[in-house]
Amino acid sequence: MKPGDSTSVWLQRSTERLDQAILRYVDEQVSVASGLKSAIHYAATGGGKRVRPLLTYATASLAGKELDQVAGLDACAVALELFHTYSLVHDDLPCMDNDDLRRGRPTVHKAFDEASALLVGDALQTMAFQLIAQSALNDAQKVQVITSLSTAGGMAGMAGGQAIDLASVGKQLTQNELEQMHRLKTGALLRTAVQIGAIAIHLNDQEKKSLDVFASALGLAFQVVDDVLDASSDSQTLGKTAGKDAAANKPTFVSLMGLDGAREFARQLHQEALDSLSIWGDNADLLRAIASKVVNREN
Amino acid sequence: MKPGDSTSVWLQRSTERLDQAILRYVDEQVSVASGLKSAIHYAATGGGKRVRPLLTYATASLAGKELDQVAGLDACAVALELFHTYSLVHDDLPCMDNDDLRRGRPTVHKAFDEASALLVGDALQTMAFQLIAQSALNDAQKVQVITSLSTAGGMAGMAGGQAIDLASVGKQLTQNELEQMHRLKTGALLRTAVQIGAIAIHLNDQEKKSLDVFASALGLAFQVVDDVLDASSDSQTLGKTAGKDAAANKPTFVSLMGLDGAREFARQLHQEALDSLSIWGDNADLLRAIASKVVNREN
Repeated sequence: MKPGDSTSVWLQRSTERLDQAILRYVDEQVSVASGLKSAIHYAATGGGKRVRPLLTYATASLAGKELDQVAGLDACAVALELFHTYSLVHDDLPCMDNDDLRRGRPTVHKAFDEASALLVGDALQTMAFQLIAQSALNDAQKVQVITSLSTAGGMAGMAGGQAIDLASVGKQLTQNELEQMHRLKTGALLRTAVQIGAIAIHLNDQEKKSLDVFASALGLAFQVVDDVLDASSDSQTLGKTAGKDAAANKPTFVSLMGLDGAREFARQLHQEALDSLSIWGDNADLLRAIASKVVNREN
Repeated sequence: MKPGDSTSVWLQRSTERLDQAILRYVDEQVSVASGLKSAIHYAATGGGKRVRPLLTYATASLAGKELDQVAGLDACAVALELFHTYSLVHDDLPCMDNDDLRRGRPTVHKAFDEASALLVGDALQTMAFQLIAQSALNDAQKVQVITSLSTAGGMAGMAGGQAIDLASVGKQLTQNELEQMHRLKTGALLRTAVQIGAIAIHLNDQEKKSLDVFASALGLAFQVVDDVLDASSDSQTLGKTAGKDAAANKPTFVSLMGLDGAREFARQLHQEALDSLSIWGDNADLLRAIASKVVNREN
């Protein structure tokens, strides 16, 4: 698990590390015998790309230590993924995107019911904050991480972006407006993923700033690629319903600039993300590997 | 606003203080121009009994200081009420209690739509944690308050209680099972309300424990009275749909012990709550006043 291992082995091992940590924390927190336990397990252990916690781990690895030696890191990575999962479970509900398929399986409200999916999402959000508050970080770090996560999740982040999204169906947005929506809806949490890793290893403000440029560019690239895949792939490859943006008449980077234009834009953002890492030299190879994975992914 | 004022004046002034603080904090946090802003305002400023933040204020007043002098107190009280409001907005949704009326007005999904109500609840929960993290408490206090709130909201609290509630429709519960459900569903957050006040004024563990006995008894009394009112009052007086427990075939203290038995149980719990305050002398008169208000309320 040392940063010196080849990046693909590191990514594989870190994903396994995260999956084990998720199981451990969910079992710890959901000790009450409850009908909700299996639904929370189903939602939290459904796989996925785990981009956000991998970004946290990769950022923490900039300190050159093994991940085991970074206090509170696993709890933060799990909290971030649970928070992301909460947003997916709620987004999939009938009153939102009404989606039946997620990560190649029935969505939570399909596998269980709507009430369970609502409660699972609510509980996952709460558990994320609980995990951080009870982690091995020191108090100052906990407050910084909670501030970052709640800012990313709130009206200046995901919730605000979702509200713009709901209000923009059937409208033509400018590129600026579309970028702003996605900086809130998706970008804010990806930035938080990197910030949390930086907080865990006590980086200074200048170092944090250079990583924030990386995370911002990568966050937008992530969404542009999402739009490209939604328009050009099929549901089986994606593990979720393809073509739903066009079907819902939602403005996307593809509807704005065409498939080729969107692909070129993703390439530019990828380059911008890589450029921002130059000060880190080889130490940032894991972040570079994640960026490539995000931009060149097929689902 | 001094504790020495007559209790009814104090309750009135503290409610006004809270309402103003809610408006101020919601405006601060919801600065993004968004379709969600009016829905968040609607949900957060709809009045209500404000029992939880009043408990926080009354507990903080045990220090004998004016509330203004307790750092971070308003932010905590607002966070608590926003968290409670999030749970009400989601509970009212069609897939849960499917309720059209709350605090004498249409519920959020009726006044707006389901997607907005879902997002409003999600955002209010996030905002609660954000408010605490950015408050004037010190870092150690912030972590304690966030631990208390997230524990009360999670699987060992509201979410766990809701799950039992959903699973118990149409079933006969024993008194122990019914009490356990409500200790999680309602009681946990009322205990947190008192804990937060105690954290804000740096009470010691023994003092906190005596207040926890008070809050536990009062929390259960609150629910017993709720059941009595649901079975014996009308929707106009309640400001929410009356008789819905029986209609939904839910186990309640009234279905378990009859109206008179439930009223007597509430009286016993009220006495238990009052007994636990004896060590505080006159200083706890505000907590006593809130307890009377809870037990003798008509809605």
